[in-house]
Amino acid sequence: MNSLGRKGVVVRHIQRANPADLASLAASGVATVHEAQGRKGLLDPAIRPIQQNKSLAGSAVTVLLAPGDNWMFHVAVEQCQPGDMLVAVPTSPCVDGFFGDLLATSLQARGVIGLIADHGVRDLRTLREMGFGVWSRAVYAQGTVKETLGSVNVPVICAGQLIMPGDTIVADDDGVVVVARAETAHIAEKARQREELEESKRARMAAGELGLDIYRMRARLAEKGLRYVETLEDLEE
Amino acid sequence: MNSLGRKGVVVRHIQRANPADLASLAASGVATVHEAQGRKGLLDPAIRPIQQNKSLAGSAVTVLLAPGDNWMFHVAVEQCQPGDMLVAVPTSPCVDGFFGDLLATSLQARGVIGLIADHGVRDLRTLREMGFGVWSRAVYAQGTVKETLGSVNVPVICAGQLIMPGDTIVADDDGVVVVARAETAHIAEKARQREELEESKRARMAAGELGLDIYRMRARLAEKGLRYVETLEDLEE
Amino acid sequence: MNSLGRKGVVVRHIQRANPADLASLAASGVATVHEAQGRKGLLDPAIRPIQQNKSLAGSAVTVLLAPGDNWMFHVAVEQCQPGDMLVAVPTSPCVDGFFGDLLATSLQARGVIGLIADHGVRDLRTLREMGFGVWSRAVYAQGTVKETLGSVNVPVICAGQLIMPGDTIVADDDGVVVVARAETAHIAEKARQREELEESKRARMAAGELGLDIYRMRARLAEKGLRYVETLEDLEE
Amino acid sequence: MNSLGRKGVVVRHIQRANPADLASLAASGVATVHEAQGRKGLLDPAIRPIQQNKSLAGSAVTVLLAPGDNWMFHVAVEQCQPGDMLVAVPTSPCVDGFFGDLLATSLQARGVIGLIADHGVRDLRTLREMGFGVWSRAVYAQGTVKETLGSVNVPVICAGQLIMPGDTIVADDDGVVVVARAETAHIAEKARQREELEESKRARMAAGELGLDIYRMRARLAEKGLRYVETLEDLEE
Amino acid sequence: MNSLGRKGVVVRHIQRANPADLASLAASGVATVHEAQGRKGLLDPAIRPIQQNKSLAGSAVTVLLAPGDNWMFHVAVEQCQPGDMLVAVPTSPCVDGFFGDLLATSLQARGVIGLIADHGVRDLRTLREMGFGVWSRAVYAQGTVKETLGSVNVPVICAGQLIMPGDTIVADDDGVVVVARAETAHIAEKARQREELEESKRARMAAGELGLDIYRMRARLAEKGLRYVETLEDLEE
Amino acid sequence: MNSLGRKGVVVRHIQRANPADLASLAASGVATVHEAQGRKGLLDPAIRPIQQNKSLAGSAVTVLLAPGDNWMFHVAVEQCQPGDMLVAVPTSPCVDGFFGDLLATSLQARGVIGLIADHGVRDLRTLREMGFGVWSRAVYAQGTVKETLGSVNVPVICAGQLIMPGDTIVADDDGVVVVARAETAHIAEKARQREELEESKRARMAAGELGLDIYRMRARLAEKGLRYVETLEDLEE
Repeated sequence: MNSLGRKGVVVRHIQRANPADLASLAASGVATVHEAQGRKGLLDPAIRPIQQNKSLAGSAVTVLLAPGDNWMFHVAVEQCQPGDMLVAVPTSPCVDGFFGDLLATSLQARGVIGLIADHGVRDLRTLREMGFGVWSRAVYAQGTVKETLGSVNVPVICAGQLIMPGDTIVADDDGVVVVARAETAHIAEKARQREELEESKRARMAAGELGLDIYRMRARLAEKGLRYVETLEDLEE
Repeated sequence: MNSLGRKGVVVRHIQRANPADLASLAASGVATVHEAQGRKGLLDPAIRPIQQNKSLAGSAVTVLLAPGDNWMFHVAVEQCQPGDMLVAVPTSPCVDGFFGDLLATSLQARGVIGLIADHGVRDLRTLREMGFGVWSRAVYAQGTVKETLGSVNVPVICAGQLIMPGDTIVADDDGVVVVARAETAHIAEKARQREELEESKRARMAAGELGLDIYRMRARLAEKGLRYVETLEDLEE
Repeated sequence: MNSLGRKGVVVRHIQRANPADLASLAASGVATVHEAQGRKGLLDPAIRPIQQNKSLAGSAVTVLLAPGDNWMFHVAVEQCQPGDMLVAVPTSPCVDGFFGDLLATSLQARGVIGLIADHGVRDLRTLREMGFGVWSRAVYAQGTVKETLGSVNVPVICAGQLIMPGDTIVADDDGVVVVARAETAHIAEKARQREELEESKRARMAAGELGLDIYRMRARLAEKGLRYVETLEDLEE
Repeated sequence: MNSLGRKGVVVRHIQRANPADLASLAASGVATVHEAQGRKGLLDPAIRPIQQNKSLAGSAVTVLLAPGDNWMFHVAVEQCQPGDMLVAVPTSPCVDGFFGDLLATSLQARGVIGLIADHGVRDLRTLREMGFGVWSRAVYAQGTVKETLGSVNVPVICAGQLIMPGDTIVADDDGVVVVARAETAHIAEKARQREELEESKRARMAAGELGLDIYRMRARLAEKGLRYVETLEDLEE
Repeated sequence: MNSLGRKGVVVRHIQRANPADLASLAASGVATVHEAQGRKGLLDPAIRPIQQNKSLAGSAVTVLLAPGDNWMFHVAVEQCQPGDMLVAVPTSPCVDGFFGDLLATSLQARGVIGLIADHGVRDLRTLREMGFGVWSRAVYAQGTVKETLGSVNVPVICAGQLIMPGDTIVADDDGVVVVARAETAHIAEKARQREELEESKRARMAAGELGLDIYRMRARLAEKGLRYVETLEDLEE
Repeated sequence: MNSLGRKGVVVRHIQRANPADLASLAASGVATVHEAQGRKGLLDPAIRPIQQNKSLAGSAVTVLLAPGDNWMFHVAVEQCQPGDMLVAVPTSPCVDGFFGDLLATSLQARGVIGLIADHGVRDLRTLREMGFGVWSRAVYAQGTVKETLGSVNVPVICAGQLIMPGDTIVADDDGVVVVARAETAHIAEKARQREELEESKRARMAAGELGLDIYRMRARLAEKGLRYVETLEDLEE
């Protein structure tokens, strides 16, 4: 059964990935993790960080919200554990400021490290001063009401990706990627390997060696028909 | 009579709010002020600051501009007083760079503290170095002409809000909110009260108390039908 | 003949502007250069810098890319010289992360100073730490393939402007402007003159003199029919 | 006092313009009316008709809505009279389908002729079959709740324009324009005059006479410096 | 395991819903079906029909595409049966014209009734003349290559919704909604019931009865504090 | 020399393609012509037709406009000949209604067949009734002034493509493509050949033959690693 869209439900127990693997993924960063898992799981680039130079990985506690209504955030706080990241999604597009420094204070008190918001947030300066990581679709001070139920810890589609409660969220200056919980250890390992590989490439490139040679591209380019000419005028005959 | 859209007029005398109230509102910030006045007056979130960590409040001197024509800015400068903020609006959507460091220098010489631009601006680096606060719809170097009249100190609609000359503008990292001039003192007081209230909430939340309990939400959530289950699988039957 | 869109071609030799003129243009900045050349050449404001306070000018090496395919970047690196800037354009709109820190390392090793990307980039934090200047349409970690030929050093249209290989690119916090190679020295000189002129204006404005008087606007405003009234109420009769 | 944003209020009695003037404005159409009133009052071009070839003019009954909540529409219906047009605005951006064929049926039963929706609508096919005119920001089937109060017949800002209850709304394939109620008769007359003037221009142009001559533009163009050359090559010296 | 993003795979056998239920859902239409299944499953409103007055329901054959590469469409055709609808999604945002009249001809020959395209399409006039239903994110003639594998009949996220191969797609002038295959019969029945209910409401409303009375809203509105005043001036005290 | 951006100039004589080739290209349509010339020359998909089922090809008379200023349209009319299409571009982004039925009447009197507008247009209903073809970025009634010079028949960049005066413009329901004047005859011939080729493919596909077989794709797909499995469950091991 697909519980997407199911409203008025709170799931109390979710499984989370291993903290060591989360730490490893945070160190690898979004671009590397995305590559390591076969180029899947990236959230829409409209989700942007409100701060610079922060790289986090945590377990998703999901929140499904009615547009203009942040009631479920308060319900969600109680379900969080240290190392979690909230993933909040309205049921239809809405950029209201569902989230600000008070909720961040409450979440930080429980050890939550960040928020992925498919909506707007507010109190930016305080959020940055608190060191609470936020990635959001918009910045907007618009207040919300507390009238309509949503859900906590149900599967959600956030910025174009399916996120199951307990999935691993990696976020940095490049954006946000989701890794399935069960694949977290495996992907963390693959990301580390990829980093090592890239490190050796980086050293060779820094020394002036060309990617054309490192990756042995010349023959295949020629085979595809790439043609070198001396000047632009050579093209015009 | 509605003078919106009236062109070729400069109004010399406008009333302004009390400087102490402006200072108080700047300290409260946009999100709090917006809540304190009943969630009205927020400008469209497309208006973004070009700097971080600046919170201002000033009296609106309004400028109505022809698209691609910044002539009226020069007319507006003369109407400004210390503590004012310019609110500039083209008569149709236009992201040209109507405003840059020269105009900012002239305004700063008269004590103007910032600009709300429903259009584009340029010379960002210098503007930031000068400490002149700017919130704009776009950054674009495109130059403008000086051929067509607009108006100064007429009512304008800026980024979705009606702004009367002399109204109070509050702007920070969260965006921009307008407060009617006559309500400024009252809203400043309500914003301070709200901050105090929030401060006590923040302390309880920082100590780990839940919003669910602080705001006594549990009964109403249950009444609306919120259901807690142990695991996601419990939903699938 | 118009080689726009021509694929599978690499042009080895392009002419570049004089390094001293490039340095001069970088010092003048985008807004001044744009004005100095008669308000042409600005790229679309959707192209934004990933860093602050960097002002660069370099010679364009152009790269035409298939959507989702960054193969040609590797071909382009070999064609670069110190002081160059890459100008990369997909053949149809695409925000994938065609470019990241590895390619930047390779380019930096050859003395390339920056990238203008009419697409997405990734590895922002490292790019900023490296001091490699990047202006892009988007930030997105999405990986790309290496299957389809594009071209290097053909004319391209990037963010609404025609750029010939070897043209001069100027980029700073305000955006990006292109100057034709052959006009570079002339525009550099005009930009310096303009700066001097602006400096004298700035000094007078900082001293409180009005643009209305410096530019002798009052008579022409009156002639166009600008009307001064004392209060808003005076308009309503 | 500015009642914008005031919630939980229904104003029962509003004044409306003369039906004959409304009919006249509908015949003139949006572009002509906009010109006749000095180029003010146009709603944002994002508001588009769901049908073709319909030109309406009616008196505004305004509805202020919470995002994702269409409760107030039912309250508004009761305040409507024959010849009215509903103008519906959410308090923050929201494209949900607040409005569909059932509400249209209820409104049509009271003689309401159309809707201006700064949000989404649904049931397009039926709405078109009913001949009920709709201009909206989006088409989206997303359902809404009935939990939060808004207001009816308060001033609203809709798609960038201030609309007072009872103001005249003119809408056709070009978009939507608002005319102040008190100015309706005057603008209807000016629009008719303008149409006559345009008609004579149209006849001359259809006969091949040039606008350059009809409007005597040649001298002023020359004075501004317009230069005619024979071929593009003449520009390149 | 989550196969989202898995590339280079074709799944030959999928289960489909009952044709009679599909026919019933097509008759009910998107808005009613969306309501009947608890307001879930709507695709992003950016997906718009290229034709008017067409209402379809079919079984999803999913196609995952590399950006700018339509190779997998040809693979997908072979997997289709009469009554199917193709659901095509690029792995990153891309508006290229992946689909035109030739592919439509091939699909129509196999009995496929329509396409949901999270990308661009071309040959609009012919597609409309053929009566092949198309809902797409864009119209763009940009051609695509055939170099990179994608997948057929894997789960995809299309315009913000998870779609499993074999799920039921309902599309009309209002947009597109997905119904889980296993729920199709149940939702078809609920949609019919809802229509009947709406029909009775429509009749009462057409006769002039108010929603306020039909839904007995007056008491709850009063309880929430809705206040009726006679004129706008009554608010200003 | 690059005359792009040159203002205040009218070029009287331009060369045009052969009318028979234009007629042939109009019959081929945008998608086929775009393919026939190697997939270049497409304008941005934001340029949309205001009518359906119209396919035109004409010679470009270009108009460069100041934002919010349509003066140059009147200058351009005089430079037009039967079979021309106007291509109008503002010097910075602007959606004002620069063009309406009066200008269309004047152009139609000279035999001009359509307009490509990188801006807004108005009087849609009349334009459609007149049969004058219009493709535009927006529909907006906003009026413009006549104060600032632009140019006629200079090279322009319109919606992302370089257009030289006299180039051939092809436009239909799919959008707009530019063909270099000198290549027009050649591309017209290639487009006809392509159509014939497509026609034979269409017949085979309509008869049920698969593209996989017609284009002999199976071997190459297998070589790239495409894998067929029976059910989705087969993927999950």
